[in-house]
Amino acid sequence: MNLSKTKILQPIQKKLGSTNIILVGMMGAGKTTIGKALASSLDKEFVDSDHEIQERTGVKIPVIFEIEGEAGFRKRESEALLELSQKRNIILATGGGAILNPENRQLLKRSGIVIYLRASVNDLYRRTRHDKNRPLLQTQNLYARLNELYVQRDALYRETAHVIIDSGKQGVRFLVQKLINKLISIDFNTIMQGDQSNIMQTIMVDFTPSAEKRSYPIHIGHGILQHIDLIVSCLPQKRVAIVSNSTVAPLYLEKLQTALEKQGVRTMPIILPDGETHKNWETLNIIFDALLKNHCERNTTILALGGGVVGDLTGFAAATYLRGVPFIQIPTTLLAQVDSSVGGKTGINHPLGKNMIGAFYQPLMVLADSATLNTLPDRELRAGLAEVIKYGLIRDPAFFDWLEQNMHRLLARDPVTLNEAIQRSCENKAEIVAADEKEKGIRALLNLGHTFGHAIENGMGYGVWLHGEAVAAGTVMAAELSRRMKLISEADVQRIRKIFIQAGLPVVAPEMPAEKYLELMLLDKKVESGKTRFIVLNRIGEAVMRADITPAVLNETILACMTE
Amino acid sequence: MNLSKTKILQPIQKKLGSTNIILVGMMGAGKTTIGKALASSLDKEFVDSDHEIQERTGVKIPVIFEIEGEAGFRKRESEALLELSQKRNIILATGGGAILNPENRQLLKRSGIVIYLRASVNDLYRRTRHDKNRPLLQTQNLYARLNELYVQRDALYRETAHVIIDSGKQGVRFLVQKLINKLISIDFNTIMQGDQSNIMQTIMVDFTPSAEKRSYPIHIGHGILQHIDLIVSCLPQKRVAIVSNSTVAPLYLEKLQTALEKQGVRTMPIILPDGETHKNWETLNIIFDALLKNHCERNTTILALGGGVVGDLTGFAAATYLRGVPFIQIPTTLLAQVDSSVGGKTGINHPLGKNMIGAFYQPLMVLADSATLNTLPDRELRAGLAEVIKYGLIRDPAFFDWLEQNMHRLLARDPVTLNEAIQRSCENKAEIVAADEKEKGIRALLNLGHTFGHAIENGMGYGVWLHGEAVAAGTVMAAELSRRMKLISEADVQRIRKIFIQAGLPVVAPEMPAEKYLELMLLDKKVESGKTRFIVLNRIGEAVMRADITPAVLNETILACMTE
Repeated sequence: MNLSKTKILQPIQKKLGSTNIILVGMMGAGKTTIGKALASSLDKEFVDSDHEIQERTGVKIPVIFEIEGEAGFRKRESEALLELSQKRNIILATGGGAILNPENRQLLKRSGIVIYLRASVNDLYRRTRHDKNRPLLQTQNLYARLNELYVQRDALYRETAHVIIDSGKQGVRFLVQKLINKLISIDFNTIMQGDQSNIMQTIMVDFTPSAEKRSYPIHIGHGILQHIDLIVSCLPQKRVAIVSNSTVAPLYLEKLQTALEKQGVRTMPIILPDGETHKNWETLNIIFDALLKNHCERNTTILALGGGVVGDLTGFAAATYLRGVPFIQIPTTLLAQVDSSVGGKTGINHPLGKNMIGAFYQPLMVLADSATLNTLPDRELRAGLAEVIKYGLIRDPAFFDWLEQNMHRLLARDPVTLNEAIQRSCENKAEIVAADEKEKGIRALLNLGHTFGHAIENGMGYGVWLHGEAVAAGTVMAAELSRRMKLISEADVQRIRKIFIQAGLPVVAPEMPAEKYLELMLLDKKVESGKTRFIVLNRIGEAVMRADITPAVLNETILACMTE
Repeated sequence: MNLSKTKILQPIQKKLGSTNIILVGMMGAGKTTIGKALASSLDKEFVDSDHEIQERTGVKIPVIFEIEGEAGFRKRESEALLELSQKRNIILATGGGAILNPENRQLLKRSGIVIYLRASVNDLYRRTRHDKNRPLLQTQNLYARLNELYVQRDALYRETAHVIIDSGKQGVRFLVQKLINKLISIDFNTIMQGDQSNIMQTIMVDFTPSAEKRSYPIHIGHGILQHIDLIVSCLPQKRVAIVSNSTVAPLYLEKLQTALEKQGVRTMPIILPDGETHKNWETLNIIFDALLKNHCERNTTILALGGGVVGDLTGFAAATYLRGVPFIQIPTTLLAQVDSSVGGKTGINHPLGKNMIGAFYQPLMVLADSATLNTLPDRELRAGLAEVIKYGLIRDPAFFDWLEQNMHRLLARDPVTLNEAIQRSCENKAEIVAADEKEKGIRALLNLGHTFGHAIENGMGYGVWLHGEAVAAGTVMAAELSRRMKLISEADVQRIRKIFIQAGLPVVAPEMPAEKYLELMLLDKKVESGKTRFIVLNRIGEAVMRADITPAVLNETILACMTE
């Protein structure tokens, strides 16, 4: 055995002892590949339950399905799992459907650290489409089938797992290292006893191979701002400028500075005035002046510690200072954690329109500590929920259902529920951004409710309505527009209104002349050849962009939405 | 024959008649591949002189070299060319060394349109390193050999050619189309009689396949601003904003607007105050205000018509308006044509430093019309020459020699000489930028003389010294520093001083305390960990970045350069 390997792995091997590691996830998520590599790294035995079943029966799995049906196979699978769970010191890769049986789920959870290797339907499709050894996939429309399986199983994998890892487009070695880092950082005793609030989850924003260098992780968890190594390990120079505002700085700045300085990182705080009205050139210049006066260099990293305004301003400053320096997002509001900190949209407002000046510029990392939400005013928490609900509406119907059921827990700031909401929001956002960084296509769907919403914010005066509040009312307007276009039913609209009311958000548009709405909406960045384009709903869980909206329908929609 | 093909090619076939097309260029430039494809497109016969020689002798060329030596082969080559030149209606690919013989050069020039397929040494190396059929390349150090051949032959190819096409990294179909477009645009009678001033040359800034979408052409020629189709054909929307300044607009704006409007393009002028002192946020906001008030959209293209300040401001506005809109550079000063318009560096000044705020953002196209230099004040023409000389110093010794010989023609504004200087400068810049878009490496070499130069500009007050003047004095300082580091000789320094004096540029640094110089240089964007890094010369034609310069040497250099 090679010396350096021993040296690196000792702590984690010691910590793990003979604990089993169990991999669950969809077919194509990489359970076998990652499992084998992990077994070799940790010096454990690798076991594949499907393989065991084949060994025992002497035939391939498709044959078992043909002779005994799925039920017969599932029975054999449960038997095999029961036997394998007696073993110690193994890495166990389970079949994709193993978690369908509630007893199996309980069994696995008790038998080791369960890791859910999550992959998007797109990635699964890419990896499995040529595979003939998977009986459930022998169907005409593989993508639709995978999607169906995913919707059915994702919640079960989550329920079973202690740790969730996004397998994304990363290579095996990278993923194994990520998994080991995760195992190092978590407390086995706590999670085996069921407290999941302090587990950190990581989601990758994975750009295509050609833009791979811009890919970056989003770390999500309760209290993870204390894991200062997450930040220190990715700094190109042991020097940072921390941009925050007068509200957030007193809460978290000193602690962050002290922790960084302890690790030998020079820090320099830059405090901005708080509020959307300050998202302008003058405030941006406060950052530039400080960076220049302190001779910050191309390798100096800028940390954005605060909500959406701090993140957008800091990101734009980082994009343009010396034509681009590294930056890290540390969002402290729900809105920033689920939306604005992810995806690289940065910018400032212009008197004639919101976010009119800016850049697409990706951070090195996003660190979303849900514990910081404890200090967030109720009104801002609710505003953030508007963007969370948006993901359910535009592309994730299962998440929408989950939100309906868990809204009260979110409002009560239950850490596990908050973590899950942030995580599922970021998963959706990361997939969209990776597919369409510069908003040439599907990324525009994230603007559901925003064309109306921006008009409300601007028309009422920036800061009077919070962004999330305007988006809530704007989304109800978009739903109402969709209904008038005969895309969704009145019942759908009522369901949408209801979830926003549940979240304590406004669902009635403020009084403004319809002409004023129309005029303000012409400032939208989606306008093409003088025509405003709108994101509308085909159904709850599917959005689409449409340019064929008549002024009459638009007018009616606006008027209808200004009354309850 | 396919109808659409007939339709597309008729005009060019008609124009060409039975005129021959002759391809010259280095081995590996693509003469055979392009020649065959061109012959098929234009319905002409393809002839390869090397192939003819092999046919006649019955043996492969390496055998001829072995038996008769290079001289024997060259004799057979001249005979073959003489015979082939009697033919009509052919595409002739010549051997790489055919142009070594002055009689061959004259012969080829008379026998058809001669096209030089130019490729960089890097590209040639990539394409030829596995080829065993080329006797002159059977050497240990292929790259060095190619470089040597290139330096020896490039000027001869240029002398022979009527048209130069950069073969770059483009595919065959693209290159053939580019060649046909070029043939359509030029006047055969004029060029066959030797007036090359109105030929347009095109150089590609070719990014790697992963960033291919950002690749773009630089068109160079005398009077090409009249070819309005060049602009119109690449607009995503028939609408442009034209940014210019109060000096340039009266000269060229109306003509450009009229020509565009004639083609159905809506135009909107934005006139900025002239001068480096206006390269700031206030002026940038003049552009933003106009774009927003006129509802310019994500597809509206912004044209920058003017010098470096207009180009930098407009480029930065385009990079950040709605997070990025298309833009085109139409540089009207020598400095902008040879340097600032190419490569995507955009930005504004900050009271604490030049170009401190900005972005890397590539244009759709650069259109450099050397006829616009006729209205340029002498002082600005000379300032532009400082950046031209820079290319010779940092990487192109043959160009430096050429500049020493042709400086008087450049100062007399001879169109052909100006075109060649712009073209060779842009070739150098395009190669560097394509290899290192974001200045992580070799692009920094373009900063030769700029660390000192920026200190001079800033110290004297922006606009007092022109940028090119400061770069001239700064380059002499960098040369002096290189000499003190024992990299170049006193004779080299004198040769460098002499060419700047020839160009009418300052070679003595202005009087400022050395401490002031040092303080201002700390604002340089190349500073890393508090250490200023300098570009110095290993020899004339080779620059390198060094961080190991002692304060003592720097101090001595500054003091020495403030006196004649």
